[in-house]
Amino acid sequence: MPGSRTLYFDHAATTPPLPAAVRAMAEAAEAAFGNPSSAHAAGRAARRALEDAREFLRGTLGAARVVFTSGGSEADYLGIIGSAAARPPGRVLMAQSDHPALLQCTGLLARWRHHVSTLPVTREGDLAPETLFEALGQDVRTVALMYGHNELGTLCRLHDLVELVRRTAPAAHVHVDLVQTYGKLPLDLDEFDVDSVAVSGHKFRGPRGAGFLALSSTAELAPLQLAGGQEGGLRGGTENVPGAVGLAIAAEHALSHQAATASRTEEFAQTVFAALRDVVPGIERLGHADRRLPHILSVRLPGIVGQTLATRCDARGLAFSTGSACHGANDDGTGKPADNHVLAAIGLDRRAAREVVRVSFGSDSTAEDVGAATRILVDECGRLLDAAPRDRSHGGARQ
Amino acid sequence: MPGSRTLYFDHAATTPPLPAAVRAMAEAAEAAFGNPSSAHAAGRAARRALEDAREFLRGTLGAARVVFTSGGSEADYLGIIGSAAARPPGRVLMAQSDHPALLQCTGLLARWRHHVSTLPVTREGDLAPETLFEALGQDVRTVALMYGHNELGTLCRLHDLVELVRRTAPAAHVHVDLVQTYGKLPLDLDEFDVDSVAVSGHKFRGPRGAGFLALSSTAELAPLQLAGGQEGGLRGGTENVPGAVGLAIAAEHALSHQAATASRTEEFAQTVFAALRDVVPGIERLGHADRRLPHILSVRLPGIVGQTLATRCDARGLAFSTGSACHGANDDGTGKPADNHVLAAIGLDRRAAREVVRVSFGSDSTAEDVGAATRILVDECGRLLDAAPRDRSHGGARQ
Repeated sequence: MPGSRTLYFDHAATTPPLPAAVRAMAEAAEAAFGNPSSAHAAGRAARRALEDAREFLRGTLGAARVVFTSGGSEADYLGIIGSAAARPPGRVLMAQSDHPALLQCTGLLARWRHHVSTLPVTREGDLAPETLFEALGQDVRTVALMYGHNELGTLCRLHDLVELVRRTAPAAHVHVDLVQTYGKLPLDLDEFDVDSVAVSGHKFRGPRGAGFLALSSTAELAPLQLAGGQEGGLRGGTENVPGAVGLAIAAEHALSHQAATASRTEEFAQTVFAALRDVVPGIERLGHADRRLPHILSVRLPGIVGQTLATRCDARGLAFSTGSACHGANDDGTGKPADNHVLAAIGLDRRAAREVVRVSFGSDSTAEDVGAATRILVDECGRLLDAAPRDRSHGGARQ
Repeated sequence: MPGSRTLYFDHAATTPPLPAAVRAMAEAAEAAFGNPSSAHAAGRAARRALEDAREFLRGTLGAARVVFTSGGSEADYLGIIGSAAARPPGRVLMAQSDHPALLQCTGLLARWRHHVSTLPVTREGDLAPETLFEALGQDVRTVALMYGHNELGTLCRLHDLVELVRRTAPAAHVHVDLVQTYGKLPLDLDEFDVDSVAVSGHKFRGPRGAGFLALSSTAELAPLQLAGGQEGGLRGGTENVPGAVGLAIAAEHALSHQAATASRTEEFAQTVFAALRDVVPGIERLGHADRRLPHILSVRLPGIVGQTLATRCDARGLAFSTGSACHGANDDGTGKPADNHVLAAIGLDRRAAREVVRVSFGSDSTAEDVGAATRILVDECGRLLDAAPRDRSHGGARQ
């Protein structure tokens, strides 16, 4: 079957769920079906399952509190808008290359009279400390940072950036998007001195429609959906107990295999890149050379239209992407692909941007599958370059 | 095991999930694991599963569009705040007895410079057309109505109320909370001329953390969480495909058994009420006598503290509630029960409010279990009345 898990290399878009998490969720749906707000035994059983999952997840990040949300986007919204809404009108800082879940907070933030300043990033997709420093001021209420970038893989200099915020705008809330990073690299809220981090279940083989916001002991937030006052008054609505259970099971698995997965996926990325380098002159690996997520390989393939390559590989059962899946959605109906704001932010022109593909690996990726994927990629790249009118006016490879 | 499903009669708080829905969700989690925004085969398979579920749910309500949300509360938020946010500042109408998911929109609505007018209800928990008429005006942007009330069971006069809105404030958006009613009684958006309805999966044996907002063809909404532009630009975040599948499976089951379930649960409610009437002098069935949800029995038991009764029955494996589960959550930590705004709205004083319990039935309730529950209720009510200092200064039963 095309698109089966066999040659699935789009783990940054979403991951096949852990079978143990799927089973645990189905069990919890029946065994802990009560409403955690109910006082009776069925309610108390559901409450226990919910709080056990919360406590486990809290511990994985050294957080003071965990607020369950419907996913990473809502966790980003609550962390960014919720913190700004609890503060006087001012400025919110983020980067031009950030995920839409962050950038699209801008409209709502205006309702609290906050202005968003989007900061430029380097060619590596990196927010330079000096860029942040220039933008900081006493009127900054929230700084939103992506730790690992979903398209480029670049890891920001989180320690340095937070330190700058603490020195210049000590009352500001530091929110970190950890959606691509959780389960891949460790992070401790205290150690990094951040106020909130957003996590999404489906990025680490956990449930869809479930994520959480982890908070430091001093984080101050206003709720965006109060409803019945659930989640410590920060997020209303009947709690998704099976989702919470699935998050905990998938997190436990990801974290107990974290170092091994990181080194294996990093090796896979290097293997694929090395093979492509042999057939695609001028190939460029995007993102930061030293600070990056292990599981994301983002490359520019001069002379190859990424979408054409992806379509041909898809027909052979190999799945990867030409950018964030979230960009795909923007194309709906218009017929004209949306400009990719990430690639624009790192300075690629339209033509170069079309030559970018992202191959991403997961904890269940195998060397055998990576080998098969590599052969298909090399084969199709070779065919496309053979067929294309040659134009070698591009720059050389960066690495 | 206490609190097992055997004597679970709190179906208005939440329902045990349909096993077929749980299975279908587990299967979809693995077979349709792709990100629906991805162009490759795995993404397309997930997109198909999502759109098939959407199309089925759309048809059940005669809606033009369905927007998946994280549940009923978010669907209410999106319908109410989203519609008001797409309109100039003005007034939003709702009732004093409405669910917190509606009432707690007030704070956010102020951010769009909307003012909420909460309208009084009758002793039956009914919004009288003349009350709505008095409040209506050209400045009304959104009218939020609960079709079936979660605590009292009262069904509002939806046809009459919507007609009044259309005559007096034709540009207003009519949002209907259908959380307790979907799967119990039919509703067609066109027939009732409403713009949006909110539905929650876990109230009809579907998934937790999943619900939807169904929209008419002319409904105009602004998104509250745009993120990657999913859900037709109305609700961002990677789509919860298994949740959508579970909603469709549970809806199909509920709707194909709707009439039979309604008549059976209505009979159960009458059976329990009749038995209690024999032992509790002055018992009063709350809600409207003719217009009500079939599955909710809300009664005031003079001389009996509802929480005491519930605790004693819980010890015998019988679960019901003393009001909305969503009120339970508000009690957290304070030690002092929150005033129940619903019972205050229908004119009960604090003492009378403490005497109210809600017993609610589901499609899997059996006559045998109802019989067992009735015996426990009658027994415990008898004991509590025997033990209590007599005070018969209450009014007579209403029916």
